[in-house]
Amino acid sequence: MDILFATSNPHKFEEAAAFLGQRGIRAARLPFEHRELRSDNLEEIAREAVDSAYSVCGKPVFVEDTGLFITALNGFPGTYSAWAQKKIGNKGILKLLSGAGDRSAFFETCIAYHDGKSVSFFSGRCAGTIAEAARGTSGFGYDPIFVPEGHPQTFAENILLKNNISHRYKSLLEFSKSLEP
Amino acid sequence: MDILFATSNPHKFEEAAAFLGQRGIRAARLPFEHRELRSDNLEEIAREAVDSAYSVCGKPVFVEDTGLFITALNGFPGTYSAWAQKKIGNKGILKLLSGAGDRSAFFETCIAYHDGKSVSFFSGRCAGTIAEAARGTSGFGYDPIFVPEGHPQTFAENILLKNNISHRYKSLLEFSKSLEP
Repeated sequence: MDILFATSNPHKFEEAAAFLGQRGIRAARLPFEHRELRSDNLEEIAREAVDSAYSVCGKPVFVEDTGLFITALNGFPGTYSAWAQKKIGNKGILKLLSGAGDRSAFFETCIAYHDGKSVSFFSGRCAGTIAEAARGTSGFGYDPIFVPEGHPQTFAENILLKNNISHRYKSLLEFSKSLEP
Repeated sequence: MDILFATSNPHKFEEAAAFLGQRGIRAARLPFEHRELRSDNLEEIAREAVDSAYSVCGKPVFVEDTGLFITALNGFPGTYSAWAQKKIGNKGILKLLSGAGDRSAFFETCIAYHDGKSVSFFSGRCAGTIAEAARGTSGFGYDPIFVPEGHPQTFAENILLKNNISHRYKSLLEFSKSLEP
């Protein structure tokens, strides 16, 4: 089965294509520069984006939107995670959390899939904490500062672990199951 | 002359109505809950918002969009200033700047006015620095941490000064001049 993944982010595409490939689903990238909706809701953002992507390509296509939600920062950077990463980076997040007692956070991904008729959603969440300092070089974005629950390493220190427990993994798993004949 | 100001922010309305009132322009508030465009450009955001407001009220109406742009943070929080204020507050901005050599920043306001035929823009900028700690209780938002260039006090410590030199003042001044018969 072939499917399009509309994304401007090559890292996201690589992670998703590798996962889906193992399940016999061949993903092609639809380069997609799209102005996202301004919203605090991942599903709402993904919904609008996949409608837009489908109107461009006219073929079954999915998008995903991911955010890092930090408890002590009222959910910041949330749905603006990519933007905040560009502006203040992991260094900024660590500064914001200096002295914070609660370092809990979660990543959440929402996949929206347009099959030509309707849109389905597949969400995945990964709970954890924000490390005291950036560690590791794998992955991208906030991976060097995110420590998944029950593990000592950051995502960037253990990319194999990331790819088997992450928010993106979980949402892709549900999504791939839905595609099974 | 009567004019509508479409805004969800009562503080902004008060500042603008007081200023315009002194110049014989009576501003009424159009309560306006609007999903802003996701953009790094104030004028683009204001343009879309005033078109939307005009489509609601069908009368001459203006909107304004304001951002605080901090040099050391690559322009953060910029066009997302209201959102960032809710999430991380002035405390968060001060943390982000701890140890920063460069504390320069500017406020910018862009007014977009729809006169029923076309849209005009009026921008105002106020340069300054971010204080080491919050001071003062007047104003709103980032006023307690913004020190305008050439003055020792924050906007929140000297609201009269703010109302005579601010980004909003400058943009309102240009706007009011354009309305003179």
